[in-house]
Amino acid sequence: MIRVGVNGYHTIGARLADAVKKQPDMRLIGVSKMQPDYRARIAAEKEIDVYAANEKSLESFRNVKMTAKGMLTDLLQKVDVIVDATPDEVGASNKPIYEGAGVKGIFQGGEEHSLTNFSFVAQCNYGEAANKRFVRVVSCNTTALCRALHALERASGIEKARAVLVRRGADPDEVGKGPIDAVVLDPPTVPSHHAADVRSVMKGLNIVTMAVKVPETHMHLHTLLVTLKKKASREVVVDALESEPRVVLVDSKTGVKSTAALIDMAREMGRPRNDIYEAVVWRDSVSVSDNEVYFFLAVHQEAIVIPENIDAIRAVSGGYTEAQSMKVTDDSLSISPGAWKT
Amino acid sequence: MIRVGVNGYHTIGARLADAVKKQPDMRLIGVSKMQPDYRARIAAEKEIDVYAANEKSLESFRNVKMTAKGMLTDLLQKVDVIVDATPDEVGASNKPIYEGAGVKGIFQGGEEHSLTNFSFVAQCNYGEAANKRFVRVVSCNTTALCRALHALERASGIEKARAVLVRRGADPDEVGKGPIDAVVLDPPTVPSHHAADVRSVMKGLNIVTMAVKVPETHMHLHTLLVTLKKKASREVVVDALESEPRVVLVDSKTGVKSTAALIDMAREMGRPRNDIYEAVVWRDSVSVSDNEVYFFLAVHQEAIVIPENIDAIRAVSGGYTEAQSMKVTDDSLSISPGAWKT
Repeated sequence: MIRVGVNGYHTIGARLADAVKKQPDMRLIGVSKMQPDYRARIAAEKEIDVYAANEKSLESFRNVKMTAKGMLTDLLQKVDVIVDATPDEVGASNKPIYEGAGVKGIFQGGEEHSLTNFSFVAQCNYGEAANKRFVRVVSCNTTALCRALHALERASGIEKARAVLVRRGADPDEVGKGPIDAVVLDPPTVPSHHAADVRSVMKGLNIVTMAVKVPETHMHLHTLLVTLKKKASREVVVDALESEPRVVLVDSKTGVKSTAALIDMAREMGRPRNDIYEAVVWRDSVSVSDNEVYFFLAVHQEAIVIPENIDAIRAVSGGYTEAQSMKVTDDSLSISPGAWKT
Repeated sequence: MIRVGVNGYHTIGARLADAVKKQPDMRLIGVSKMQPDYRARIAAEKEIDVYAANEKSLESFRNVKMTAKGMLTDLLQKVDVIVDATPDEVGASNKPIYEGAGVKGIFQGGEEHSLTNFSFVAQCNYGEAANKRFVRVVSCNTTALCRALHALERASGIEKARAVLVRRGADPDEVGKGPIDAVVLDPPTVPSHHAADVRSVMKGLNIVTMAVKVPETHMHLHTLLVTLKKKASREVVVDALESEPRVVLVDSKTGVKSTAALIDMAREMGRPRNDIYEAVVWRDSVSVSDNEVYFFLAVHQEAIVIPENIDAIRAVSGGYTEAQSMKVTDDSLSISPGAWKT
């Protein structure tokens, strides 16, 4: 059994803790949290051991009469792998603590590639993570791009990839963020950082990305414009996307014409927290002309990296092939293309 | 003097009536309106003659004790050119009325190209409008695309143009429209209608467009990805955009990082109704690699077609060259690249 700890218990950490509990080969030892907020209480109700991040945090727990199981440093003594789900760039400052404790660590895409010098997407480079001590799971947007582009690369080779990212302005609970009534250039310069981030996984890929931010919380929406190395029929492209792990195809004719409809589908399907772990491609958007391919892709920013984190834990721990690990993960999270038949 | 009437007095009609009044060679005879709402009252206060659209409409005016100057049919007796600013596809049903009255007519981009078989963007095809009886001014998005692409075509020829349109969900006063929290595929299939619409002006252009709709009211935002026929330096591309009529460049480093900031700039500049008649390109987004060009472009959906409508009135009336007409229009509306020095 891989003993796992989760440091940070918000959007990603909370989801990850639940996912770890579902793995037959993992044991969730506990989670570490800064504030004794409603998430901490709900974790405790779920019989998850909650640790305070530090002395000050421990004091905050005491002030509201919540009992922390100890501090992060105590948690680290009991785990093989810690997953860092703290806010962007806090992870970097935690790395020395993990090193000192002698544990392996998984970081999120908010950290720089240089923190671990290895960025991870399961179906692209699982094998390379073997025996790595620290691994960075790439961001939600990069994860989705890598999955979809991996399919096209397999099918016909990618001459060049262009993507326009329409990013959600905030997560549903982030009431202090905007924009409220604007399209924000994010950033105003070209390319956005996503291109280099994809290349940190798919080495040498010719890719340019441009990103804007808009006032909505229901998923990111990517527009892909890809030139293939060799001509392919639309059927070949659709088949490649359909057979790619963790990519699902939906059809707008069934009423799914927006990101909000996808989230509603996930609720109807009974997905926990309406989570969509898959990159979602609109089948009827897939358009092929000579060697150019176009399609729309939706990314659930709160959930898509959860299976990647689980696989990363296994990859650094050894004992599973890519296919074995992904199958265990997908089975545990009910990830199957069949679930999305529309 | 060209005697002009405006049928429909909402977003476009109200702006157009004001713009016509500013032309030295035009006289606004009156506007025709369906409802005696606050816009009708404000028009009357501005001493614009307001006509009722039909008998039923005349009755509505009487009911609120507003005096209409007559009906649309009366207005048509007194004008040389009628501009149809009624809602999408209502224009088509008005065409026989205009034909019966023997007036020339300008329609908006909400109508089909086939209604007039001639779609108009001043700097692209002013000359071809001479002696046409009916002309269609293309939509806001198509107008902006044509202006920007016309600049690139002049500079280096366009091999192919790709554009992703992030459309405003509604105008600021349209409280009944959405979306509120979603990115909507508009449409889910590729290409969107904008590609064919651009080709109705720029014949034979290799263009693919994809569009989504988002919850904001402050302008459309286009992402352009254009392959030039021959390589060009970034300087050549920026110069081409800068020297193109009705295209202005702004720099995000001055704080303009969103469509909302542009509208705020227009307010600070004292533009009536915060109107932006120009297609706005972010100078620092212009990126050139080999013969590929990328940039962000913003489009004020309520205002950008106003100068085009004025030029269209002149084009069908004769007596002006393209350059002459555009200069008179631009001077009257304070359109000058200098206004936007940032």
